[in-house]
Amino acid sequence: MEYKKNPQGIETESFEIIQSIIQQEFPTYQFASPKEEKIIKRVIHTSADFDYLQNLTFTHDVVAVLEQFLQAGEGTIFTDTTMALSGINKRVLDQLGINYACYIADPDVAEQAKAKGMTRSMAGIEHAATLPGPKVFVLGNAPTAIFKILEMVEAGTLEPTAVVGVPVGFVGAVESKEALYESDLPAIVARGRKGGSNVAAAIINALLYQMVERES
Amino acid sequence: MEYKKNPQGIETESFEIIQSIIQQEFPTYQFASPKEEKIIKRVIHTSADFDYLQNLTFTHDVVAVLEQFLQAGEGTIFTDTTMALSGINKRVLDQLGINYACYIADPDVAEQAKAKGMTRSMAGIEHAATLPGPKVFVLGNAPTAIFKILEMVEAGTLEPTAVVGVPVGFVGAVESKEALYESDLPAIVARGRKGGSNVAAAIINALLYQMVERES
Repeated sequence: MEYKKNPQGIETESFEIIQSIIQQEFPTYQFASPKEEKIIKRVIHTSADFDYLQNLTFTHDVVAVLEQFLQAGEGTIFTDTTMALSGINKRVLDQLGINYACYIADPDVAEQAKAKGMTRSMAGIEHAATLPGPKVFVLGNAPTAIFKILEMVEAGTLEPTAVVGVPVGFVGAVESKEALYESDLPAIVARGRKGGSNVAAAIINALLYQMVERES
Repeated sequence: MEYKKNPQGIETESFEIIQSIIQQEFPTYQFASPKEEKIIKRVIHTSADFDYLQNLTFTHDVVAVLEQFLQAGEGTIFTDTTMALSGINKRVLDQLGINYACYIADPDVAEQAKAKGMTRSMAGIEHAATLPGPKVFVLGNAPTAIFKILEMVEAGTLEPTAVVGVPVGFVGAVESKEALYESDLPAIVARGRKGGSNVAAAIINALLYQMVERES
């Protein structure tokens, strides 16, 4: 069988194909900025789903806010699933000095969740709020995590730098994302039902790859 | 804000909504079997994408083959990404005595890939082939891994029990999945461009959750 085996070549060609499909099938589509373009295209690259041309929205200058956060190199990225964290390029985060954590499998957080009658994702947000430093939340799975963040922001007990809010789902996902979209928080939001841990990771990776040269 | 916080309740309701959307929007759609139904619905649950009603295909009695593999409790699941492995319920795999591995970040495999001018995914397949025991490959990312498996099967150097072949993408993904679909290997294939690590993990979890009671 003849097939392409060069990873860099495959990725470059993939983005060329994505661009040509956008030109053919969405000829009037305009990206708001080159940076948003790179994020949206990487999400399409990870999902093969061109709905994200319409779904993925950016509020309150969130891309600049996230870039500053990453460049400052002293904050923490919190994800709602190990899968999202697994998909994010941690070599680059290490390079930038950005911390990362996911508490979904943390026994103490699980216990808190049980005791308080909330999801582990919500207890994870409460735990993250107790830690020092700037915080970005990257959520591909848990609408309850978004609701909890908005509650704590309203109560003045949490001040996230930004939120990537792209939970996929049928119960609460749309509502939580609309609430985030309408909030004052700088946010990247996948409106509608779609999203996921892969989408969450792709968004962060797209930002990272605009900031550093990749080796392989 | 009022929102649902009971994880089990959220999941149950999600599947009810998925069922009602199928009835409304795809009234003539028929699942081939209750087991395929559970797999397809879990993939929709993880992606909010009803294209999988059409895309996800099952060959050579693959569900029964995979169930036997999982029940026998002496094989290994190999994934092409840490993200797919991260999404699979490893507590249940441990319970069943099934091993799991991903070599994409293995330094030796990376070195082999460089030396042989192939992708790390391909080198990972070659490495897996040297290990004893029944093997199931779960691939959400790398068309080259599927091509490599088909090459090795043809050469008689690899005999997988089954392949979950759902790489997402624009270069080689469709072709690799069609080749797998046409092959003699028992396979679950996401035809077309769509798929991904999340889809790969959801397929295995759907199988696992039909075999064991879940705690949470």
